[in-house]
Amino acid sequence: MPHALPLVSAQSIGAHLAVEQDHGAVIRRSVLPGGVRVLTEQIPGMRSATVGAWVGVGSRDETPEHAGSTHFLEHLLFKGTQRRSAQDIAVAFDRVGGESNAMTGKEFTCYYARVIDQDLPLAIDVIGDMVTSARLDDADFEMERGVILEELAMSEDDPGDVAHERFTEAVLHGHPLGRPIGGTPEIIRAVTRDAVEDHYRQHYVPEGLIVTAAGGLDHDTVCALVTEALIRGGWDLTDDRAPLERRDPLAPVEASLVPQVRVNRDLEQTHVLLGTRGFRATDERRSVLGVSNAILGGGMSSRLFQEIREKRGLTYGVYSFGAPSADTGVWGMYAACNPANADEVERLLGTELERLAEGITAEELERAQGQIAGTTVLRLEDSYSRMSRLGKAELVQGELWSIGESLDRVRAVTADDVVALAADLASRERVSVRVGQLGE
Amino acid sequence: MPHALPLVSAQSIGAHLAVEQDHGAVIRRSVLPGGVRVLTEQIPGMRSATVGAWVGVGSRDETPEHAGSTHFLEHLLFKGTQRRSAQDIAVAFDRVGGESNAMTGKEFTCYYARVIDQDLPLAIDVIGDMVTSARLDDADFEMERGVILEELAMSEDDPGDVAHERFTEAVLHGHPLGRPIGGTPEIIRAVTRDAVEDHYRQHYVPEGLIVTAAGGLDHDTVCALVTEALIRGGWDLTDDRAPLERRDPLAPVEASLVPQVRVNRDLEQTHVLLGTRGFRATDERRSVLGVSNAILGGGMSSRLFQEIREKRGLTYGVYSFGAPSADTGVWGMYAACNPANADEVERLLGTELERLAEGITAEELERAQGQIAGTTVLRLEDSYSRMSRLGKAELVQGELWSIGESLDRVRAVTADDVVALAADLASRERVSVRVGQLGE
Repeated sequence: MPHALPLVSAQSIGAHLAVEQDHGAVIRRSVLPGGVRVLTEQIPGMRSATVGAWVGVGSRDETPEHAGSTHFLEHLLFKGTQRRSAQDIAVAFDRVGGESNAMTGKEFTCYYARVIDQDLPLAIDVIGDMVTSARLDDADFEMERGVILEELAMSEDDPGDVAHERFTEAVLHGHPLGRPIGGTPEIIRAVTRDAVEDHYRQHYVPEGLIVTAAGGLDHDTVCALVTEALIRGGWDLTDDRAPLERRDPLAPVEASLVPQVRVNRDLEQTHVLLGTRGFRATDERRSVLGVSNAILGGGMSSRLFQEIREKRGLTYGVYSFGAPSADTGVWGMYAACNPANADEVERLLGTELERLAEGITAEELERAQGQIAGTTVLRLEDSYSRMSRLGKAELVQGELWSIGESLDRVRAVTADDVVALAADLASRERVSVRVGQLGE
Repeated sequence: MPHALPLVSAQSIGAHLAVEQDHGAVIRRSVLPGGVRVLTEQIPGMRSATVGAWVGVGSRDETPEHAGSTHFLEHLLFKGTQRRSAQDIAVAFDRVGGESNAMTGKEFTCYYARVIDQDLPLAIDVIGDMVTSARLDDADFEMERGVILEELAMSEDDPGDVAHERFTEAVLHGHPLGRPIGGTPEIIRAVTRDAVEDHYRQHYVPEGLIVTAAGGLDHDTVCALVTEALIRGGWDLTDDRAPLERRDPLAPVEASLVPQVRVNRDLEQTHVLLGTRGFRATDERRSVLGVSNAILGGGMSSRLFQEIREKRGLTYGVYSFGAPSADTGVWGMYAACNPANADEVERLLGTELERLAEGITAEELERAQGQIAGTTVLRLEDSYSRMSRLGKAELVQGELWSIGESLDRVRAVTADDVVALAADLASRERVSVRVGQLGE
């Protein structure tokens, strides 16, 4: 029977918990001395493994004057450690054909690598080295400033990126979650090495670290390798510190909402976003939200795709999306179109949200449930997505549903649930963003 | 022992050939009555399957006045068949969580779907229906014209896309391979339904069709399902036609080279491309090219990444690439940077190509070989990439190397091979493309 792994017991030091997944995969969780959490999913027959080191700190945790320092630090961890140069780190992964990268989010940072199973010890060693022993050299810092400015410039030249950034900023105006993850060029030009180092010393500590891994692996071996790597990096794992608490999902969210944002650019297409405040990651309606998005804007058969692209030929790409955080969220619909059609496309987006609140057919519900079930099973073949699922469950949700339980919850969603959720979303104050030729 | 599947016997009707891959996977090839080729890779333990229907015709086969009609037709196949509406097709895949899409290339078109293994019969039925029985309705045609114009507009707003399109056009100037796959807005506004229908009638025929599939499947079942689907679609598979010949790799290539292209755009970054005429897909040096690109611009440890990003902080993204066709190819290096640094970045790209011709270290060679081996093994977990490998082998290369044989060829590459290839590339006339703020 499917049952949830109770990650809510994050504080129970030394707890060893296990849950069996479908198809013979086994998920286990251990808390190492020092408060380091290790979650693994052993997948029979898989020849690859993906490992990630997570720190529950992201751009929302920065002060405005140091915005972008989490992302800056992420870059610097690849620039060298006490034992390895930047090239040594790159060579270590490249020589085994591994894929290594990192992502900085608004609420976490994750360093990961996907490798052939036999190379997992190497991957854990290198990532452990980066997390514990970053060099944060002055010259490297200045060099990387240039790279990050280029990354921000690339994003600024991507009108879809710009539209999404401005949308989040408008839905959560004045809140740290509304800021762009990478900061702004002005702040990045001014940020000091000391600020980034402070950030590193404060947050890269045993009780804040979560290591997740999925694929061809053995849980106890991963725990041993993680322990070795962290001790080699100089971390003290002898005292029994408790893992850090998760963010409070009920913390008050102080943000306003900017109803309209217009960015004038000389582009062929206008990027249109329409949406509102969404739901937190632990909201009990998250399965309902998944089904609702599938029906409204989650595939070629979705209402948005059929109405705006197939029946009217107004757009190439259109979809709806949810972006949950610990204590709040963003929900929206996106389309790009000819500038002359932007008013009509925005009107259609709004109409489809309101139509969803008027009812769905049994066939639509069944299709959405089948779609989520199929996608979920297909995603199981990817060790990266399994590693990532473990990390987010531990960091954000506080519990891990087995695949079977996840699908049971999706199957339990009713048409009334979808209609009630759509009515709720449709009643909220909306944000409209456009990036492109705005006309007069 | 690894051995190649001799696809060169494309004309031997009814041939049943099989080759065993590493890890128990088995590749089989059959030619059905009518000349339809079916290639499958059965992968033990895999729960998904990807199937693709390939037609060996792409944008290079169009007349200039109908440029983009192959891509237009690809869109129309999703708009409905005699048995299914556009929504029926979308629903069929969405309700099982499948991923379906199509790609139009310069030399082929492929319709594919990735599904749970139990849904493979459905996927073959729907794709077979699209290939044999497209409705090509007048009203759908006009509607889809709008969607395609939006797709072209999206690409025109992506400066990286623009730079790559202009680069290919400059390296193969005057040749059909130099044209953009999607055509131009002017031609798409003018193209007629009859032209697209002619294209469909002429090229979507049994002797031109290749079906490839990989994952949890049985070869004989796939052959039976494909036969059923095509007969249901009205295709005559009774006469013994021979499969179409592959393109002639030794056909003379009539193209000139435009040394410099400058596109002025108000962007934060300037996109820089430097390269030259490359190698055809069947060139005997393709394993050498793979190793050379890995050393020069194929990962974080590559020379381009280390020299231009890590040591100088001038760029976020930089790489080298090869784009082979049947009878010729394109090879180049790409970086995006601050407009003020474009001259220096272009100079560095050229210098690194020339330095590669001066020698490589044993460590670099070994690392590149390890990188390709690891990447190859990691890619085996993805049924899409295996399906795609079968299609390209049948359509373009004319032979299929087993994974073992592929890796043996990579391991056989010497430092002298890399140096000779780099010297050849460095001696060729170059094309320089820039998209961005050009200054005075």
